[in-house]
Amino acid sequence: MEISVAHLGPTGTYAEAAALAYVDWLAKETNQAASLCPCPSISQTLRSVKQAAQLAVVPVENSVEGSVTVTLDTLWQLEQLQIQQALVLPISHALLSHSSLAEIQTVYSHPQALAQCQHWLEKHLPSVKLIPTNSTTEAVQHLQQQPKAGAIASSRASELYSVPILAAQINDYPDNCTRFWILGTKPTTAGSYISIAFSVPDVPGSLVKPLQVFARRGINMTRIESRPTKRSLGEYLFFIDLEGNLNQDSIAEALSEIQTQTKELKFFGNYDIILPRQ
Amino acid sequence: MEISVAHLGPTGTYAEAAALAYVDWLAKETNQAASLCPCPSISQTLRSVKQAAQLAVVPVENSVEGSVTVTLDTLWQLEQLQIQQALVLPISHALLSHSSLAEIQTVYSHPQALAQCQHWLEKHLPSVKLIPTNSTTEAVQHLQQQPKAGAIASSRASELYSVPILAAQINDYPDNCTRFWILGTKPTTAGSYISIAFSVPDVPGSLVKPLQVFARRGINMTRIESRPTKRSLGEYLFFIDLEGNLNQDSIAEALSEIQTQTKELKFFGNYDIILPRQ
Repeated sequence: MEISVAHLGPTGTYAEAAALAYVDWLAKETNQAASLCPCPSISQTLRSVKQAAQLAVVPVENSVEGSVTVTLDTLWQLEQLQIQQALVLPISHALLSHSSLAEIQTVYSHPQALAQCQHWLEKHLPSVKLIPTNSTTEAVQHLQQQPKAGAIASSRASELYSVPILAAQINDYPDNCTRFWILGTKPTTAGSYISIAFSVPDVPGSLVKPLQVFARRGINMTRIESRPTKRSLGEYLFFIDLEGNLNQDSIAEALSEIQTQTKELKFFGNYDIILPRQ
Repeated sequence: MEISVAHLGPTGTYAEAAALAYVDWLAKETNQAASLCPCPSISQTLRSVKQAAQLAVVPVENSVEGSVTVTLDTLWQLEQLQIQQALVLPISHALLSHSSLAEIQTVYSHPQALAQCQHWLEKHLPSVKLIPTNSTTEAVQHLQQQPKAGAIASSRASELYSVPILAAQINDYPDNCTRFWILGTKPTTAGSYISIAFSVPDVPGSLVKPLQVFARRGINMTRIESRPTKRSLGEYLFFIDLEGNLNQDSIAEALSEIQTQTKELKFFGNYDIILPRQ
Protein backbone atom coordinates (compact mmCIF):
# COMPACT_ATOMS: atom_id res chain seq x y z
CA MET A 1 0.00 0.00 0.00
CA GLU A 2 1.28 3.44 -0.91
CA ILE A 3 1.81 5.84 1.98
CA SER A 4 0.57 9.44 1.78
CA VAL A 5 2.99 12.08 3.11
CA ALA A 6 1.35 15.41 4.00
CA HIS A 7 3.35 18.68 4.01
CA LEU A 8 2.84 22.43 3.78
CA GLY A 9 2.32 23.26 0.11
CA PRO A 10 2.07 24.31 -2.62
CA THR A 11 4.97 22.80 -4.57
CA GLY A 12 8.30 24.57 -4.00
CA THR A 13 8.21 25.03 -0.20
CA TYR A 14 11.03 23.85 2.07
CA ALA A 15 8.51 21.52 3.74
CA GLU A 16 7.97 19.85 0.37
CA ALA A 17 11.76 19.49 -0.04
CA ALA A 18 11.87 17.76 3.37
CA ALA A 19 8.94 15.51 2.40
CA LEU A 20 10.65 14.60 -0.90
CA ALA A 21 13.90 13.75 0.94
CA TYR A 22 11.87 11.53 3.27
CA VAL A 23 10.01 9.77 0.44
CA ASP A 24 13.37 9.13 -1.25
CA TRP A 25 14.78 7.69 2.00
CA LEU A 26 11.68 5.48 2.48
CA ALA A 27 12.03 4.00 -1.00
CA LYS A 28 15.74 3.33 -0.57
CA GLU A 29 15.73 2.02 3.01
CA THR A 30 12.37 0.25 3.29
CA ASN A 31 11.26 -0.22 -0.33
CA GLN A 32 8.04 1.58 0.60
CA ALA A 33 6.29 3.67 -2.09
CA ALA A 34 4.86 7.02 -1.02
CA SER A 35 3.16 10.03 -2.59
CA LEU A 36 3.05 13.67 -1.48
CA CYS A 37 -0.08 15.41 -0.21
CA PRO A 38 0.29 19.25 -0.06
CA CYS A 39 -1.79 21.04 2.63
CA PRO A 40 -2.64 24.76 3.04
CA SER A 41 -1.23 25.11 6.60
CA ILE A 42 0.98 23.30 9.12
CA SER A 43 -2.01 22.77 11.40
CA GLN A 44 -3.99 21.13 8.57
CA THR A 45 -0.92 19.05 7.62
CA LEU A 46 -0.89 17.53 11.13
CA ARG A 47 -4.68 17.15 11.34
CA SER A 48 -4.77 15.22 8.04
CA VAL A 49 -3.01 12.21 9.64
CA LYS A 50 -5.70 9.79 10.84
CA GLN A 51 -4.62 6.27 9.88
CA ALA A 52 -1.53 4.09 9.57
CA ALA A 53 -0.96 4.85 5.87
CA GLN A 54 -0.75 8.60 6.47
CA LEU A 55 2.27 10.58 7.62
CA ALA A 56 3.02 14.29 8.01
CA VAL A 57 6.35 16.09 7.61
CA VAL A 58 6.42 19.37 9.58
CA PRO A 59 9.15 21.86 10.59
CA VAL A 60 9.93 21.91 14.33
CA GLU A 61 12.74 24.41 14.70
CA ASN A 62 15.08 26.52 12.64
CA SER A 63 18.65 27.28 13.71
CA VAL A 64 18.09 31.04 13.36
CA GLU A 65 14.42 31.70 14.04
CA GLY A 66 13.82 29.02 16.66
CA SER A 67 10.70 26.94 17.25
CA VAL A 68 7.85 26.64 14.79
CA THR A 69 5.27 27.27 17.47
CA VAL A 70 2.22 26.15 15.47
CA THR A 71 3.76 22.65 15.23
CA LEU A 72 4.21 22.38 19.02
CA ASP A 73 0.79 23.88 19.82
CA THR A 74 -1.07 21.60 17.37
CA LEU A 75 0.79 18.50 18.54
CA TRP A 76 -0.21 19.23 22.15
CA GLN A 77 -3.88 19.52 21.11
CA LEU A 78 -3.97 16.31 19.03
CA GLU A 79 -4.08 12.91 20.73
CA GLN A 80 -2.96 10.37 18.22
CA LEU A 81 0.33 11.57 16.73
CA GLN A 82 3.79 10.10 17.43
CA ILE A 83 7.14 11.13 16.02
CA GLN A 84 8.36 8.40 13.63
CA GLN A 85 11.68 10.04 12.66
CA ALA A 86 13.43 13.40 12.52
CA LEU A 87 15.53 14.90 9.73
CA VAL A 88 17.57 18.08 9.31
CA LEU A 89 17.43 20.06 6.06
CA PRO A 90 19.99 22.77 5.18
CA ILE A 91 18.17 25.98 4.22
CA SER A 92 19.66 28.18 1.49
CA HIS A 93 17.60 31.20 0.48
CA ALA A 94 17.83 32.89 -2.92
CA LEU A 95 16.40 36.16 -4.24
CA LEU A 96 14.23 35.43 -7.28
CA SER A 97 13.00 38.05 -9.74
CA HIS A 98 12.25 38.72 -13.42
CA SER A 99 13.80 42.17 -12.85
CA SER A 100 17.29 43.44 -11.87
CA LEU A 101 18.46 44.19 -8.33
CA ALA A 102 18.42 47.97 -8.99
CA GLU A 103 14.76 47.88 -10.07
CA ILE A 104 13.32 45.87 -7.17
CA GLN A 105 11.00 47.88 -4.92
CA THR A 106 9.16 45.07 -3.13
CA VAL A 107 10.28 41.70 -1.74
CA TYR A 108 7.77 38.96 -0.83
CA SER A 109 8.43 35.96 1.40
CA HIS A 110 7.39 33.94 4.43
CA PRO A 111 8.10 35.97 7.63
CA GLN A 112 10.73 33.41 8.77
CA ALA A 113 12.60 33.71 5.45
CA LEU A 114 12.45 37.54 5.56
CA ALA A 115 13.83 37.41 9.11
CA GLN A 116 16.62 35.01 8.09
CA CYS A 117 17.83 37.42 5.33
CA GLN A 118 17.38 40.66 7.29
CA HIS A 119 21.01 41.84 7.17
CA TRP A 120 21.42 40.97 3.49
CA LEU A 121 18.26 42.93 2.66
CA GLU A 122 19.39 45.94 4.75
CA LYS A 123 22.73 45.95 2.94
CA HIS A 124 21.64 45.31 -0.66
CA LEU A 125 18.04 46.56 -0.76
CA PRO A 126 17.83 49.09 2.11
CA SER A 127 14.70 50.95 0.94
CA VAL A 128 12.71 47.97 -0.34
CA LYS A 129 9.20 47.19 0.98
CA LEU A 130 9.00 43.74 2.65
CA ILE A 131 5.68 41.91 2.33
CA PRO A 132 4.98 38.71 4.32
CA THR A 133 3.29 35.71 2.63
CA ASN A 134 1.92 32.36 3.85
CA SER A 135 4.73 30.38 2.20
CA THR A 136 7.87 31.01 0.12
CA THR A 137 6.02 29.52 -2.85
CA GLU A 138 3.19 32.05 -2.52
CA ALA A 139 5.88 34.77 -2.63
CA VAL A 140 7.16 33.45 -5.98
CA GLN A 141 3.61 33.32 -7.36
CA HIS A 142 3.25 37.09 -6.76
CA LEU A 143 6.02 37.69 -9.33
CA GLN A 144 3.76 36.70 -12.24
CA GLN A 145 1.73 39.90 -11.84
CA GLN A 146 4.59 42.03 -10.50
CA PRO A 147 7.72 41.88 -12.65
CA LYS A 148 9.50 44.54 -10.53
CA ALA A 149 9.10 42.61 -7.28
CA GLY A 150 11.40 39.98 -5.80
CA ALA A 151 10.75 36.83 -3.76
CA ILE A 152 12.93 34.98 -1.27
CA ALA A 153 12.62 31.23 -1.84
CA SER A 154 14.68 28.12 -2.60
CA SER A 155 16.65 27.59 -5.80
CA ARG A 156 14.24 24.69 -6.43
CA ALA A 157 11.33 27.18 -6.53
CA SER A 158 13.31 29.15 -9.14
CA GLU A 159 13.35 26.07 -11.41
CA LEU A 160 9.73 25.06 -10.72
CA TYR A 161 8.31 28.51 -11.47
CA SER A 162 10.94 29.59 -14.05
CA VAL A 163 12.05 32.74 -12.25
CA PRO A 164 15.76 33.71 -12.46
CA ILE A 165 17.95 33.81 -9.33
CA LEU A 166 19.40 37.32 -8.74
CA ALA A 167 21.42 36.32 -5.68
CA ALA A 168 21.99 32.90 -4.09
CA GLN A 169 22.73 31.96 -0.46
CA ILE A 170 21.53 35.26 0.91
CA ASN A 171 20.77 33.97 4.43
CA ASP A 172 22.57 35.96 7.15
CA TYR A 173 23.86 32.82 8.90
CA PRO A 174 25.51 30.27 6.57
CA ASP A 175 24.69 27.28 8.81
CA ASN A 176 20.95 27.86 8.49
CA CYS A 177 19.04 24.59 8.82
CA THR A 178 15.61 23.36 9.87
CA ARG A 179 14.70 20.25 11.83
CA PHE A 180 11.57 18.40 10.67
CA TRP A 181 9.54 15.70 12.39
CA ILE A 182 7.81 12.90 10.51
CA LEU A 183 4.60 12.11 12.41
CA GLY A 184 2.23 9.16 12.18
CA THR A 185 -0.22 7.16 14.27
CA LYS A 186 2.13 4.24 15.02
CA PRO A 187 3.64 4.30 18.56
CA THR A 188 7.45 4.56 18.43
CA THR A 189 9.43 2.95 21.25
CA ALA A 190 12.96 2.40 19.94
CA GLY A 191 15.32 5.16 18.87
CA SER A 192 17.96 7.58 20.17
CA TYR A 193 15.71 10.55 20.98
CA ILE A 194 12.64 11.04 23.15
CA SER A 195 10.26 14.00 23.02
CA ILE A 196 7.75 14.82 25.78
CA ALA A 197 5.70 17.81 26.88
CA PHE A 198 4.13 18.67 30.23
CA SER A 199 2.40 21.32 32.30
CA VAL A 200 3.52 22.00 35.89
CA PRO A 201 1.68 22.95 39.10
CA ASP A 202 1.73 26.73 39.77
CA VAL A 203 4.19 26.73 42.72
CA PRO A 204 7.80 28.04 43.01
CA GLY A 205 10.42 25.63 41.69
CA SER A 206 7.89 23.45 39.84
CA LEU A 207 9.86 23.52 36.59
CA VAL A 208 13.21 22.66 38.14
CA LYS A 209 11.91 19.43 39.75
CA PRO A 210 11.06 17.62 36.48
CA LEU A 211 14.36 18.77 34.97
CA GLN A 212 16.26 17.40 37.98
CA VAL A 213 14.65 13.99 37.34
CA PHE A 214 16.71 13.79 34.15
CA ALA A 215 19.83 15.66 35.35
CA ARG A 216 20.21 13.40 38.41
CA ARG A 217 20.42 10.35 36.10
CA GLY A 218 22.85 11.97 33.66
CA ILE A 219 20.23 12.03 30.91
CA ASN A 220 21.07 14.72 28.35
CA MET A 221 18.30 17.21 27.67
CA THR A 222 18.98 18.54 24.16
CA ARG A 223 16.17 21.09 24.07
CA ILE A 224 13.61 22.82 26.26
CA GLU A 225 10.91 25.05 24.84
CA SER A 226 8.12 26.79 26.71
CA ARG A 227 4.70 27.55 25.20
CA PRO A 228 1.78 29.39 26.80
CA THR A 229 -1.19 27.26 27.95
CA LYS A 230 -3.24 30.02 26.25
CA ARG A 231 -5.47 30.24 29.32
CA SER A 232 -3.63 32.92 31.25
CA LEU A 233 -0.42 34.98 30.97
CA GLY A 234 2.35 33.25 32.95
CA GLU A 235 1.04 29.65 32.60
CA TYR A 236 3.27 27.44 30.44
CA LEU A 237 3.69 24.05 28.82
CA PHE A 238 7.24 22.71 28.44
CA PHE A 239 8.43 20.69 25.43
CA ILE A 240 11.57 18.66 26.11
CA ASP A 241 13.85 16.53 23.92
CA LEU A 242 16.07 13.92 25.58
CA GLU A 243 18.80 11.58 24.40
CA GLY A 244 17.88 8.02 25.25
CA ASN A 245 15.93 4.84 24.56
CA LEU A 246 12.90 3.44 26.40
CA ASN A 247 14.82 0.19 27.00
CA GLN A 248 17.36 1.95 29.25
CA ASP A 249 16.54 1.62 32.95
CA SER A 250 17.47 5.25 33.68
CA ILE A 251 15.04 6.51 31.01
CA ALA A 252 12.19 4.23 32.13
CA GLU A 253 12.68 5.28 35.76
CA ALA A 254 12.88 8.98 34.87
CA LEU A 255 9.71 8.88 32.77
CA SER A 256 7.91 7.09 35.60
CA GLU A 257 9.13 9.57 38.24
CA ILE A 258 8.34 12.62 36.14
CA GLN A 259 4.63 11.72 36.20
CA THR A 260 4.59 12.65 39.89
CA GLN A 261 6.25 16.03 39.20
CA THR A 262 4.01 17.24 36.38
CA LYS A 263 0.32 18.10 35.98
CA GLU A 264 -0.31 16.79 32.47
CA LEU A 265 2.34 14.76 30.62
CA LYS A 266 2.42 13.71 26.95
CA PHE A 267 4.84 11.30 25.29
CA PHE A 268 5.53 12.04 21.61
CA GLY A 269 7.74 9.10 20.73
CA ASN A 270 11.20 7.48 20.82
CA TYR A 271 12.74 7.96 17.39
CA ASP A 272 15.90 8.35 15.32
CA ILE A 273 17.28 11.14 13.18
CA ILE A 274 17.56 9.88 9.62
CA LEU A 275 20.06 11.11 7.04
CA PRO A 276 18.40 11.41 3.63
CA ARG A 277 20.35 12.28 0.46
CA GLN A 278 20.23 16.03 -0.16
CA MET B 1 12.69 67.86 29.07
CA GLU B 2 10.09 65.89 27.15
CA ILE B 3 10.74 62.16 26.84
CA SER B 4 10.37 60.40 23.49
CA VAL B 5 8.61 57.00 23.63
CA ALA B 6 9.28 54.76 20.61
CA HIS B 7 6.79 52.03 19.58
CA LEU B 8 5.81 49.93 16.56
CA GLY B 9 3.65 52.14 14.35
CA PRO B 10 1.79 53.45 12.48
CA THR B 11 -1.01 54.85 14.62
CA GLY B 12 -3.60 52.26 15.65
CA THR B 13 -1.33 49.35 16.66
CA TYR B 14 -1.57 47.61 20.05
CA ALA B 15 2.03 48.74 20.71
CA GLU B 16 0.84 52.34 20.32
CA ALA B 17 -2.00 51.66 22.77
CA ALA B 18 0.58 50.35 25.27
CA ALA B 19 2.81 53.40 24.68
CA LEU B 20 -0.18 55.73 25.19
CA ALA B 21 -1.09 53.98 28.45
CA TYR B 22 2.52 54.41 29.58
CA VAL B 23 2.65 58.11 28.64
CA ASP B 24 -0.60 58.64 30.56
CA TRP B 25 0.86 56.83 33.60
CA LEU B 26 4.09 58.90 33.39
CA ALA B 27 2.15 62.19 33.39
CA LYS B 28 -0.02 61.13 36.33
CA GLU B 29 2.63 59.48 38.52
CA THR B 30 5.76 61.48 37.75
CA ASN B 31 4.48 64.67 36.09
CA GLN B 32 6.78 63.88 33.17
CA ALA B 33 5.70 64.99 29.68
CA ALA B 34 6.32 62.53 26.82
CA SER B 35 5.60 62.24 23.12
CA LEU B 36 5.21 59.15 20.90
CA CYS B 37 7.68 58.15 18.21
CA PRO B 38 6.29 55.45 15.82
CA CYS B 39 8.88 53.09 14.25
CA PRO B 40 8.55 50.69 11.27
CA SER B 41 9.64 47.54 13.18
CA ILE B 42 10.19 46.24 16.72
CA SER B 43 13.92 45.93 16.04
CA GLN B 44 14.11 49.60 14.96
CA THR B 45 11.98 50.62 17.97
CA LEU B 46 14.62 49.14 20.29
CA ARG B 47 17.60 50.43 18.30
CA SER B 48 16.22 54.01 18.39
CA VAL B 49 16.91 54.26 22.16
CA LYS B 50 20.35 55.85 22.59
CA GLN B 51 20.11 58.44 25.37
CA ALA B 52 18.41 59.06 28.71
CA ALA B 53 15.46 60.98 27.22
CA GLN B 54 14.48 58.08 24.94
CA LEU B 55 12.39 55.04 25.86
CA ALA B 56 10.91 52.14 23.86
CA VAL B 57 7.70 50.22 24.53
CA VAL B 58 7.83 46.71 22.99
CA PRO B 59 5.71 43.55 23.32
CA VAL B 60 7.46 40.65 25.11
CA GLU B 61 4.87 37.89 25.22
CA ASN B 62 1.23 37.24 24.47
CA SER B 63 -0.89 34.87 26.54
CA VAL B 64 -1.92 32.87 23.44
CA GLU B 65 0.93 33.14 20.95
CA GLY B 66 3.85 33.23 23.41
CA SER B 67 7.10 35.15 23.13
CA VAL B 68 7.72 37.96 20.69
CA THR B 69 11.03 36.51 19.60
CA VAL B 70 12.35 39.59 17.78
CA THR B 71 12.20 41.51 21.08
CA LEU B 72 14.32 38.90 22.91
CA ASP B 73 16.78 38.46 20.03
CA THR B 74 17.32 42.23 19.59
CA LEU B 75 17.70 42.80 23.33
CA TRP B 76 20.43 40.13 23.48
CA GLN B 77 22.32 41.85 20.64
CA LEU B 78 22.11 45.39 22.07
CA GLU B 79 24.33 46.40 24.98
CA GLN B 80 22.79 49.44 26.53
CA LEU B 81 19.12 48.67 27.23
CA GLN B 82 17.56 48.03 30.65
CA ILE B 83 13.95 47.28 31.50
CA GLN B 84 12.45 50.31 33.30
CA GLN B 85 8.96 48.89 33.87
CA ALA B 86 6.54 46.26 32.57
CA LEU B 87 2.82 46.59 31.82
CA VAL B 88 0.09 44.19 30.71
CA LEU B 89 -2.46 45.24 28.08
CA PRO B 90 -5.70 43.29 27.46
CA ILE B 91 -6.03 42.48 23.75
CA SER B 92 -9.48 42.50 22.17
CA HIS B 93 -9.61 41.91 18.42
CA ALA B 94 -12.42 43.15 16.17
CA LEU B 95 -13.26 42.41 12.53
CA LEU B 96 -13.35 45.70 10.61
CA SER B 97 -14.83 46.11 7.12
CA HIS B 98 -16.80 48.48 4.89
CA SER B 99 -18.67 45.38 3.64
CA SER B 100 -20.95 42.77 5.27
CA LEU B 101 -19.84 39.45 6.76
CA ALA B 102 -21.42 37.51 3.85
CA GLU B 103 -19.45 39.47 1.25
CA ILE B 104 -15.97 39.19 2.80
CA GLN B 105 -13.54 37.07 0.78
CA THR B 106 -10.22 38.22 2.23
CA VAL B 107 -9.09 39.05 5.76
CA TYR B 108 -5.86 40.98 6.45
CA SER B 109 -4.00 41.14 9.74
CA HIS B 110 -0.71 40.66 11.58
CA PRO B 111 0.10 36.89 11.76
CA GLN B 112 -0.24 36.91 15.59
CA ALA B 113 -3.74 38.44 15.35
CA LEU B 114 -4.79 35.95 12.63
CA ALA B 115 -3.54 33.11 14.85
CA GLN B 116 -5.41 34.47 17.89
CA CYS B 117 -8.75 34.48 15.98
CA GLN B 118 -8.26 31.17 14.14
CA HIS B 119 -11.31 29.33 15.54
CA TRP B 120 -13.60 32.35 15.08
CA LEU B 121 -12.47 32.66 11.45
CA GLU B 122 -12.95 28.92 10.80
CA LYS B 123 -16.49 29.11 12.22
CA HIS B 124 -17.73 32.38 10.68
CA LEU B 125 -15.59 32.78 7.55
CA PRO B 126 -14.47 29.23 6.68
CA SER B 127 -13.54 29.85 3.02
CA VAL B 128 -11.96 33.27 3.41
CA LYS B 129 -8.38 33.97 2.25
CA LEU B 130 -6.10 35.09 5.11
CA ILE B 131 -3.34 37.54 4.23
CA PRO B 132 -0.58 38.43 6.72
CA THR B 133 0.54 42.06 7.16
CA ASN B 134 3.35 43.80 9.09
CA SER B 135 0.94 45.34 11.61
CA THR B 136 -2.79 45.38 12.38
CA THR B 137 -2.83 49.01 11.21
CA GLU B 138 -1.41 48.05 7.81
CA ALA B 139 -4.29 45.53 7.55
CA VAL B 140 -6.85 48.30 8.06
CA GLN B 141 -5.12 50.47 5.45
CA HIS B 142 -5.70 47.74 2.81
CA LEU B 143 -9.47 48.28 3.19
CA GLN B 144 -9.33 51.67 1.43
CA GLN B 145 -8.66 49.96 -1.91
CA GLN B 146 -10.55 46.75 -1.15
CA PRO B 147 -14.09 47.34 0.14
CA LYS B 148 -14.90 43.59 0.16
CA ALA B 149 -11.98 42.71 2.41
CA GLY B 150 -11.88 42.65 6.21
CA ALA B 151 -9.13 43.44 8.73
CA ILE B 152 -8.55 42.21 12.27
CA ALA B 153 -7.47 45.11 14.48
CA SER B 154 -8.43 46.97 17.65
CA SER B 155 -11.66 48.92 18.08
CA ARG B 156 -9.41 51.97 18.41
CA ALA B 157 -8.19 51.38 14.82
CA SER B 158 -11.85 51.31 13.74
CA GLU B 159 -12.28 54.85 15.09
CA LEU B 160 -8.94 56.17 13.80
CA TYR B 161 -9.50 54.92 10.24
CA SER B 162 -13.35 55.21 10.19
CA VAL B 163 -14.01 51.57 9.33
CA PRO B 164 -17.12 49.92 10.89
CA ILE B 165 -16.78 46.97 13.32
CA LEU B 166 -18.57 43.86 11.97
CA ALA B 167 -17.79 41.72 15.02
CA ALA B 168 -16.14 42.64 18.32
CA GLN B 169 -14.12 40.46 20.74
CA ILE B 170 -13.44 37.77 18.19
CA ASN B 171 -10.30 36.37 19.89
CA ASP B 172 -10.56 32.64 20.59
CA TYR B 173 -9.39 33.01 24.20
CA PRO B 174 -11.20 35.74 26.16
CA ASP B 175 -8.26 36.38 28.55
CA ASN B 176 -5.98 37.40 25.71
CA CYS B 177 -3.35 39.88 26.91
CA THR B 178 0.15 41.02 26.02
CA ARG B 179 3.01 41.95 28.32
CA PHE B 180 5.12 44.94 27.27
CA TRP B 181 8.51 46.12 28.50
CA ILE B 182 9.49 49.78 28.71
CA LEU B 183 13.20 49.97 27.95
CA GLY B 184 15.71 52.78 28.46
CA THR B 185 19.40 53.40 29.07
CA LYS B 186 19.11 54.00 32.86
CA PRO B 187 20.21 51.01 35.01
CA THR B 188 17.30 49.72 37.15
CA THR B 189 18.15 48.16 40.51
CA ALA B 190 14.98 48.29 42.62
CA GLY B 191 11.76 46.50 41.76
CA SER B 192 9.91 43.22 42.18
CA TYR B 193 11.07 41.46 39.00
CA ILE B 194 14.46 40.62 37.52
CA SER B 195 15.15 39.56 33.94
CA ILE B 196 18.38 37.92 32.81
CA ALA B 197 19.59 35.86 29.85
CA PHE B 198 22.51 33.49 29.46
CA SER B 199 24.21 30.90 27.29
CA VAL B 200 25.41 27.61 28.78
CA PRO B 201 28.43 25.35 28.13
CA ASP B 202 27.62 22.45 25.78
CA VAL B 203 27.66 19.62 28.36
CA PRO B 204 24.84 17.40 29.77
CA GLY B 205 22.91 19.03 32.62
CA SER B 206 24.26 22.53 31.91
CA LEU B 207 20.80 24.13 31.91
CA VAL B 208 19.64 22.52 35.14
CA LYS B 209 22.60 23.89 37.18
CA PRO B 210 21.76 27.60 36.73
CA LEU B 211 18.08 26.86 37.45
CA GLN B 212 19.03 25.03 40.65
CA VAL B 213 20.88 28.18 41.82
CA PHE B 214 17.47 29.88 42.08
CA ALA B 215 15.40 26.85 43.14
CA ARG B 216 17.74 26.05 46.05
CA ARG B 217 17.13 29.54 47.49
CA GLY B 218 13.35 29.43 46.99
CA ILE B 219 13.51 32.16 44.33
CA ASN B 220 10.47 31.96 42.06
CA MET B 221 11.23 31.71 38.36
CA THR B 222 8.14 33.08 36.58
CA ARG B 223 9.28 32.40 33.04
CA ILE B 224 11.93 30.58 31.04
CA GLU B 225 12.28 30.99 27.29
CA SER B 226 14.89 29.46 25.01
CA ARG B 227 16.14 31.10 21.82
CA PRO B 228 18.65 29.76 19.29
CA THR B 229 22.18 31.27 19.35
CA LYS B 230 21.70 31.34 15.53
CA ARG B 231 25.14 29.78 15.09
CA SER B 232 24.16 26.11 15.05
CA LEU B 233 21.03 23.97 15.51
CA GLY B 234 20.83 22.81 19.15
CA GLU B 235 22.70 25.78 20.73
CA TYR B 236 20.45 27.98 22.87
CA LEU B 237 20.24 31.16 24.93
CA PHE B 238 17.89 31.15 27.93
CA PHE B 239 15.81 34.16 29.00
CA ILE B 240 14.63 33.99 32.61
CA ASP B 241 12.31 36.17 34.71
CA LEU B 242 12.59 36.00 38.52
CA GLU B 243 10.64 37.44 41.42
CA GLY B 244 12.97 39.42 43.66
CA ASN B 245 14.96 42.56 44.40
CA LEU B 246 18.70 43.13 44.16
CA ASN B 247 18.74 44.20 47.84
CA GLN B 248 17.74 40.70 48.98
CA ASP B 249 20.74 38.60 50.06
CA SER B 250 19.37 35.46 48.35
CA ILE B 251 19.07 37.28 45.00
CA ALA B 252 22.52 38.89 45.24
CA GLU B 253 24.09 35.50 46.10
CA ALA B 254 22.22 33.67 43.34
CA LEU B 255 23.23 36.23 40.68
CA SER B 256 26.83 35.98 41.82
CA GLU B 257 26.79 32.15 41.81
CA ILE B 258 25.09 31.92 38.42
CA GLN B 259 28.08 33.63 36.77
CA THR B 260 30.10 30.48 37.43
CA GLN B 261 27.40 28.25 35.84
CA THR B 262 26.88 30.15 32.59
CA LYS B 263 28.99 31.05 29.57
CA GLU B 264 27.69 34.55 28.83
CA LEU B 265 25.29 36.30 31.23
CA LYS B 266 23.29 39.51 30.69
CA PHE B 267 21.28 41.44 33.27
CA PHE B 268 18.28 43.31 31.85
CA GLY B 269 17.08 45.12 34.99
CA ASN B 270 15.18 44.97 38.28
CA TYR B 271 11.79 46.57 37.67
CA ASP B 272 8.12 46.76 38.63
CA ILE B 273 4.91 46.01 36.77
CA ILE B 274 2.90 49.23 36.55
CA LEU B 275 -0.89 49.44 36.31
CA PRO B 276 -1.90 52.15 33.85
CA ARG B 277 -5.54 53.20 33.32
CA GLN B 278 -7.07 51.26 30.43
